[in-house]
Amino acid sequence: MATAPIPALSPLTSAEISTCSSIIEAAFPPGTKFHFKFIMLQEPPKETVVAFINANKEGKPRPSIERLAFVAYYIKDTPLFHEAIVSLSQRKILKNVRLPDDVHGCLDGPEQEEIERICLSHPDVQAALAELQLPPGAFVVGEAWMYGSDGINDTTRQYQMYLYMRDPDNSTEPDSNHYAFPLPVSPVFDATTKKLIRIDTLPTGTEFEATGVKPWKPKPANEYLPECQESLRTDIKPLRVIQPEGASFKISKVGERGTTVEWQKWSFQTGFNQREGLILYNVHYDGRSLFYRMSLSEMSVPYGDPRMPYHRKAAFDLGDAGAGATANNLQLGCDCLGLIQYLDGVVCDADGKPEARNNCVCIHEQDSGIGWKHTNFRTNRAVVTRGRELVLQTILTLANYEYILAFVFNQAGEIHYEVRATGILNTQPIDDDLFESAFGTVVHPGVLAAVHQHLFSLRVDPAIEGHANRLVYDEACTLPRDPATNPHGMGYMVKETVVDKSGGYDLDLANSRTYKIQNAAVKNPINKKSVAYKIQVPPVQLLIADPESYHHKRAEFADHHIYVTKYQDDELYAGGKYTNQSRGGTGVRSWAARKDNIVDEDLVVFVQFGLNHIPRIEDFPVMPVEIIRVAFKPANFFTKNPAIDVPPSTQNFNQSRLAQSLEGDCCAPRL
Amino acid sequence: MATAPIPALSPLTSAEISTCSSIIEAAFPPGTKFHFKFIMLQEPPKETVVAFINANKEGKPRPSIERLAFVAYYIKDTPLFHEAIVSLSQRKILKNVRLPDDVHGCLDGPEQEEIERICLSHPDVQAALAELQLPPGAFVVGEAWMYGSDGINDTTRQYQMYLYMRDPDNSTEPDSNHYAFPLPVSPVFDATTKKLIRIDTLPTGTEFEATGVKPWKPKPANEYLPECQESLRTDIKPLRVIQPEGASFKISKVGERGTTVEWQKWSFQTGFNQREGLILYNVHYDGRSLFYRMSLSEMSVPYGDPRMPYHRKAAFDLGDAGAGATANNLQLGCDCLGLIQYLDGVVCDADGKPEARNNCVCIHEQDSGIGWKHTNFRTNRAVVTRGRELVLQTILTLANYEYILAFVFNQAGEIHYEVRATGILNTQPIDDDLFESAFGTVVHPGVLAAVHQHLFSLRVDPAIEGHANRLVYDEACTLPRDPATNPHGMGYMVKETVVDKSGGYDLDLANSRTYKIQNAAVKNPINKKSVAYKIQVPPVQLLIADPESYHHKRAEFADHHIYVTKYQDDELYAGGKYTNQSRGGTGVRSWAARKDNIVDEDLVVFVQFGLNHIPRIEDFPVMPVEIIRVAFKPANFFTKNPAIDVPPSTQNFNQSRLAQSLEGDCCAPRL
Repeated sequence: MATAPIPALSPLTSAEISTCSSIIEAAFPPGTKFHFKFIMLQEPPKETVVAFINANKEGKPRPSIERLAFVAYYIKDTPLFHEAIVSLSQRKILKNVRLPDDVHGCLDGPEQEEIERICLSHPDVQAALAELQLPPGAFVVGEAWMYGSDGINDTTRQYQMYLYMRDPDNSTEPDSNHYAFPLPVSPVFDATTKKLIRIDTLPTGTEFEATGVKPWKPKPANEYLPECQESLRTDIKPLRVIQPEGASFKISKVGERGTTVEWQKWSFQTGFNQREGLILYNVHYDGRSLFYRMSLSEMSVPYGDPRMPYHRKAAFDLGDAGAGATANNLQLGCDCLGLIQYLDGVVCDADGKPEARNNCVCIHEQDSGIGWKHTNFRTNRAVVTRGRELVLQTILTLANYEYILAFVFNQAGEIHYEVRATGILNTQPIDDDLFESAFGTVVHPGVLAAVHQHLFSLRVDPAIEGHANRLVYDEACTLPRDPATNPHGMGYMVKETVVDKSGGYDLDLANSRTYKIQNAAVKNPINKKSVAYKIQVPPVQLLIADPESYHHKRAEFADHHIYVTKYQDDELYAGGKYTNQSRGGTGVRSWAARKDNIVDEDLVVFVQFGLNHIPRIEDFPVMPVEIIRVAFKPANFFTKNPAIDVPPSTQNFNQSRLAQSLEGDCCAPRL
Repeated sequence: MATAPIPALSPLTSAEISTCSSIIEAAFPPGTKFHFKFIMLQEPPKETVVAFINANKEGKPRPSIERLAFVAYYIKDTPLFHEAIVSLSQRKILKNVRLPDDVHGCLDGPEQEEIERICLSHPDVQAALAELQLPPGAFVVGEAWMYGSDGINDTTRQYQMYLYMRDPDNSTEPDSNHYAFPLPVSPVFDATTKKLIRIDTLPTGTEFEATGVKPWKPKPANEYLPECQESLRTDIKPLRVIQPEGASFKISKVGERGTTVEWQKWSFQTGFNQREGLILYNVHYDGRSLFYRMSLSEMSVPYGDPRMPYHRKAAFDLGDAGAGATANNLQLGCDCLGLIQYLDGVVCDADGKPEARNNCVCIHEQDSGIGWKHTNFRTNRAVVTRGRELVLQTILTLANYEYILAFVFNQAGEIHYEVRATGILNTQPIDDDLFESAFGTVVHPGVLAAVHQHLFSLRVDPAIEGHANRLVYDEACTLPRDPATNPHGMGYMVKETVVDKSGGYDLDLANSRTYKIQNAAVKNPINKKSVAYKIQVPPVQLLIADPESYHHKRAEFADHHIYVTKYQDDELYAGGKYTNQSRGGTGVRSWAARKDNIVDEDLVVFVQFGLNHIPRIEDFPVMPVEIIRVAFKPANFFTKNPAIDVPPSTQNFNQSRLAQSLEGDCCAPRL
């Protein structure tokens, strides 16, 4: 197997998490209380891991690697936020610093729940709600949002509370879709003291400013629960995936929480943490190195409504919440078909204890339609193969919204990163008699869904046949009409440009600009081209907020389709390590600004993609998946189609059947 | 059922095809020989069909519709090319005209085979081949290509012959991949007289002009046949789709060769012809009208190598060959999984007789992963539905290349048009010692695959709640920073623009420009917006050839992502009715130039998409599928997610299983 296990990259175990918090606690006076935000594997320096991998390959003695943990915590109920590195090998703290006042820890569930509780029982909030004249038995739900940044009294950590109501006619239903009843009262709380700072009133009319609240008028509910639908479809018959000989993949444990996966010439190691969720390491195809590490690095969801307090509404879903922290417990037969392998994860809770994320990743195969086909029209012999994919999927719930994230491997040497955006639109109240809004779409009576962008940053640390790689791009360039070289004006050619400095770079539709990660020292034996993987990324409109805005300062990745940096340890998160109420200056834009030489160096590519979400009413109450796929495809890496050895598709293998759906034979008599 | 059958749109039957040719033959002196190019249904005037549909809906008497055929034919072995309209109802010719000298019929298999035979036995060609000093037993294969246009002695219809050789070590294998052995000799034949016009020598070096041929040197083969591979994968286990209760769709015949299809609130009628292949008519969802007609209208594949004769290389795969004419006979268990319904088609042969295209369309359902999901983080209750799709697939073989084309319907009211490009790159010889070419990629020793574009035009004749529709586009527009309206510089809004005149329009990535087809007279009952369907089309680099080039003149659709016209009968083919050696002036660019008012009119939208194919060595000998999807999605057409009534995904329904792929339980002990 090409990907020998690297135990040093295996996620922290439950015991290690507990050990870390104990070590931290022991460093403080007895009785000190803590609120832990992160206890995660601190990945060893890449140099060390690479030495380990190389020693493995060469059969030499492998270096021992110190096992470290990254810990971030508050002294409970204080703004004293610390970052520590704990050596589990030595059982001691290697580094422990208090972070500046304007650096804040992420949100977490228990804290959000506590704030919600305090908010809803606060007399001032109750008084503000009373003005709405909600119906008897109204059940109000509060969601504690990241406060965002605007530079106005925002140094202390705060929560912006958005309030909703369950369907008043069904207010004992805990799964009622309260997003159909947004309320115009939005209290702000201090995250540390849990004190009310003020109560904002939301703008709901045509004025830029909020103009006060109006008494609530009855409106219908809009539930997504099956039992609340007038009827469910009865005409969809079962479709089952049967794998009578078992799955085609092999999974082995690495440490307690890591695995290696082998499937169809692919091999790689998996990890999982609170921040990034699923991580892939040391990805090889047919024994050849491709990627050292791949993970979702960050995403930013800035909203476009400029009215207070919405101007601060921008979620950094990994940095503020965490892809691992919010990972769903996936259910057999619900989230995938066929033979499923689940992986379990573990994160830390606020007390520094391990907290399970069981079934947080599912692994399964899927048919992906025809993989390649050719029919010889002279003989009518068709050779056709079906494509098979291996999917590693994780699903995040970020309050109202869901992201279904998957690494998808295929037999043609391609890796696709697929995002399915679903879940519930974040909603805000709008006057009942108002249907037009410049900033969003009315998706239900009294409910506005504002325009917003979903901008993802996928971090790709390549190792295309080694770590000295370069980033280049191909462009299709028109040839000027010229009697000697292009007399008919139809010629075009491909021009390859080397990206020589770290920085932000963009796609260009006008010339099909395509980025490739190359190893210039390794040539294709047939055509002498440098071996490469190309990046196929659907172009998205980049961050709309202007360069002086906080959205722009904070989302350090969201202004370019591609960022490329020279590798440095600990530069994992494109929006910076601490995104909650961040002010920028600590993410990939800042690293790229070093203008490092990146030609034939150890470089890292951040790929930005996503969608500009102009809500439709069809996106409510739960939106149909919107699918985005980024692909990494070999470009002169192999000597031919790497899937050419996939056995042809046969009826014996696939056992399809003729449908009996038609009265008689459809098009009989046959000719 | 919303889509009542419209027999007038049912494709011609075998008997009708024979009748047509008999009627034509009877109009000429006895003994006249014919070469038929097209005998297809001449669709009735839309006005008539719409009157029929409306009468059906209203339960009124339905107008009788005359059954017409469109016929195009040569007087055999002459350049006399005719176009006729035959009334099958009246059994007479309504129109029969000789077309101008520079209007030509499409290619067809028997004619191409005859030219190939004549070419390979021609003494001048044999003499030219002798100069190559091919190895003993060499088996040469000739492919008769559309000649293209350059305005130089190209009024008569011609064929450009590209010659290849089977693997000389396996020259009795009829399925040997001869594209791995392109030869530098390219004879040109008159298509009418079948006489040799000249023999072009292909440029193979660094010079712009061909510099003569060099003796052949041995090179390896590059076969795609499974029995020719060193080994096939043995580690891919079966994955079967089982539908124990049958398919969820219902198909009924309309006439002999048409069908209506009902599935998950969708209903539509299918047609099939030689030119466009599969056609959809009268598409409804839940009884509401969406599209009058949808089909692939044309595609252009211009190559970028400016050297003679490649400057003329540009295939119009529908107009020059035909999506119906080249449709594969699809095989159970090879081209799809699960329960499959096949449809049979019929085209005409050169003698005007019916020729079967059995199994030319397959219909099946597929699972498409999660359709929508939300997990309430407070209760951990997840509601998740799986997406089911209905696929109508047809596969074309155009000599070396394959297109897998599918209309895909889902439960969220969306139609996706999917193209999978696969098959064999068209190849040309390159000097054995040359690895760099500005115009392509060396994919095998001595083999160059030139850069080329695949530009598709999908014709969409909308009927969004009726025929008076408008085309609009949404753009996400930055708000200028302003203390009163956008004080924090992050606001943006959506601006809708009405397209008021027929013309060519483009995507604009910089502002997420998205086109929508609207019915301004029908408002969404909840948010009062005009009901609409939006067009999500992946942006492609448009035609690169300059505006004076023949590629540009001929590919009348390929210079804009969107063309929109006011409906006129008979404007079906975006590149004109007769594309072979065309000179332009007869396609959608010309129709759009009428600058008709198209606001709240009966309009037609042509959607252009595709790929700029910069070959990789991995695309040879058969390329892995490159997938492109265009989507039509409701935009404020429904009052909520139309898939909200899909029953939740359950293990009982799906019967998935845990994989037994891991030694022990992977991440035990669970926390």
